[in-house]
Amino acid sequence: MEGLFISMEGPDGAGKTTQIELLNKYLSEQGYEVIITREPGGTRISEAIRGIILNKDFNEMNDVTELLLYAAARAQLVAEVIKPALSSGKAVISDRFVDSSVVYQGIARGLGINTVYDVNSYALQGVMPHFTFLLDLPAEAGLARKKKQAELDRMEMQTLDFHKKVAEGYRKLAELYSDRIFMIDASLPVDTIHGIIKDRIKGMIEV
Amino acid sequence: MEGLFISMEGPDGAGKTTQIELLNKYLSEQGYEVIITREPGGTRISEAIRGIILNKDFNEMNDVTELLLYAAARAQLVAEVIKPALSSGKAVISDRFVDSSVVYQGIARGLGINTVYDVNSYALQGVMPHFTFLLDLPAEAGLARKKKQAELDRMEMQTLDFHKKVAEGYRKLAELYSDRIFMIDASLPVDTIHGIIKDRIKGMIEV
Repeated sequence: MEGLFISMEGPDGAGKTTQIELLNKYLSEQGYEVIITREPGGTRISEAIRGIILNKDFNEMNDVTELLLYAAARAQLVAEVIKPALSSGKAVISDRFVDSSVVYQGIARGLGINTVYDVNSYALQGVMPHFTFLLDLPAEAGLARKKKQAELDRMEMQTLDFHKKVAEGYRKLAELYSDRIFMIDASLPVDTIHGIIKDRIKGMIEV
Repeated sequence: MEGLFISMEGPDGAGKTTQIELLNKYLSEQGYEVIITREPGGTRISEAIRGIILNKDFNEMNDVTELLLYAAARAQLVAEVIKPALSSGKAVISDRFVDSSVVYQGIARGLGINTVYDVNSYALQGVMPHFTFLLDLPAEAGLARKKKQAELDRMEMQTLDFHKKVAEGYRKLAELYSDRIFMIDASLPVDTIHGIIKDRIKGMIEV
């Protein structure tokens, strides 16, 4: 039995968490043991790295440092959680994965897509999502939803210009990897989005 | 005025700290403003990363995670401290630099020299030491000195076999980069070693 790896992408506030919960329920009903994880994080070490990455006092963080920290957290998550889960036939749903690095560090920070893939090739160990769902939302709308929260982290505190680059970067990536990344309008009703996601993966999981 | 960048390498317990203090005194007498730093560490963010790398409870750390964390700490140190210092003509002495990653992660962990240089190329931004002094010591001797300390960190707690690979790896590296890395027998008297180091850099700093 082969595992199933799905990543959920999109700007902050696009509704990833809600869709992950619905997808978890659906996959469980289909007989999968489901592992839900998030980036950066998902292991003891990766959560410690997350604490550094998102610490809003670390304004002086260099872009390359940020790139390498995300990759380090990912390397641990892949080795400790994702790879073993897939090997034993489980389904893994990750709130963000390598596409986030491509968009945030490669495109929005301007380090370049190739640099991000090169550094991350060591972290990924050949593991890539079977399906990636991109919840597309204008930057302003995502930020507006997030600002209702109590406290923003270092990445959420970036400028509107940065978040616009993120939204555009995601759309560009969805074009480049149209066989894997499936873009969905995040302003659609929750159930409609869930239906689109189910339709897309049905072929692979229902016999 | 061009800066001067010197790194001190060698296994734990080889006497790097003592030689750095003597070199600091000498370079200050020659008119340099001297910055002393260490790896992993040397900036707020890099010290936070150091806390994760050396945490002895993190036994499950993946080798690639370790490599990427060292590179992340280095990227911040280069961008925030070393590059600006060299640009303004200062001397920088670092307790360990990229050669440590080549030896510990590339050779002793077995990730390969090319992998380490590839990942670190992004962290270094073209900055390399003018001189690197390798204090060579048999693995057993270094460990014996370190074990007198109160508490060992995660790297110091590695097996004797690992530390033997480190000592051999350093010697291999000194052969490969004989124009930059200068190997010195760490069992020589402290003043003798300091004299050798002074002789080596004299040509570059005394007019």
